[in-house]
Amino acid sequence: MRWRIHHESEVWGNRWLSVRRLDVEQPDGERVDYHAVRLADIAATVVTVDAQVLLMWRHRFLTDTWAWELPMGIIEAGETPAEAAGREPQEETGWRPGPLAELIRSEPAAGIMDSRHFVFRATTAEYAGPPTELNESDRIEWIPLADLPGMIRRHEIVSGITLLGLQQVLLSERG
Amino acid sequence: MRWRIHHESEVWGNRWLSVRRLDVEQPDGERVDYHAVRLADIAATVVTVDAQVLLMWRHRFLTDTWAWELPMGIIEAGETPAEAAGREPQEETGWRPGPLAELIRSEPAAGIMDSRHFVFRATTAEYAGPPTELNESDRIEWIPLADLPGMIRRHEIVSGITLLGLQQVLLSERG
Repeated sequence: MRWRIHHESEVWGNRWLSVRRLDVEQPDGERVDYHAVRLADIAATVVTVDAQVLLMWRHRFLTDTWAWELPMGIIEAGETPAEAAGREPQEETGWRPGPLAELIRSEPAAGIMDSRHFVFRATTAEYAGPPTELNESDRIEWIPLADLPGMIRRHEIVSGITLLGLQQVLLSERG
Repeated sequence: MRWRIHHESEVWGNRWLSVRRLDVEQPDGERVDYHAVRLADIAATVVTVDAQVLLMWRHRFLTDTWAWELPMGIIEAGETPAEAAGREPQEETGWRPGPLAELIRSEPAAGIMDSRHFVFRATTAEYAGPPTELNESDRIEWIPLADLPGMIRRHEIVSGITLLGLQQVLLSERG
């Protein structure tokens, strides 16, 4: 059953997000107004070395949550997901990841927004100097993969893209 | 490093989503305007019976994606996540789930929106009649858990909340 978009216009927008009104036809023929958000895609990077993963302890003010997260950021205009995934860890943690492979991708909330999440993985990294982004985190650590299930259970990791990437790594480690 | 919200107001809103302007103080003291979206939480349900999981093939018009998803829906006012997770499968698939346990929760995009995702699991279900929501899907199937890793690799499953729940089930099955 396919919903069809007949028309779309912006009702509010800024540089990062755009609220759209969509004139949508439902499979049963009914036409409705549907409001949704269009915004940039995100890339996150799982860097694993010696059965440990590079994570950042950070606060998300919108949800008032402290938790561990992967390095991540908006995929800038003209940049590929892989390029963003290569850039963000160094800016946020000081560690430059080695060669990257795409691990998993998702649509985090396709009922209301069109952004996509991409997670890449590197299995080597080189310390290049202190992070250049100073507002992100003040705790950057290598966490044993074996600790992750307990941390997830205790809600010490709640970021969707982070959970997606870490769970995929845990699944691949079990072979 | 904690970002502090000094003030918040709505710049655009409807029944389901509210765009807010937040007056935010960054850890280095700088004050910035930050726009974000506040909207309802979602509950999804993983129903597994005989090593198979109940999934729906559906189209997401915002991303123009066809893919398999868990039954899910908005957690209504006055309803708990578990109540929504018990209600949605029957409305969308006709299957009433047995007793539910919370499997995993996430913040799908806490940089830009405050909604939370909850996934519950049931290991029994009873067919109660045809689905009452007719615009959701016309393919509802029990998919072997063993098929899921390949489906994920081939991007036949991309819904963030669906991936999180299914990954968590696969991890728990491997023990």
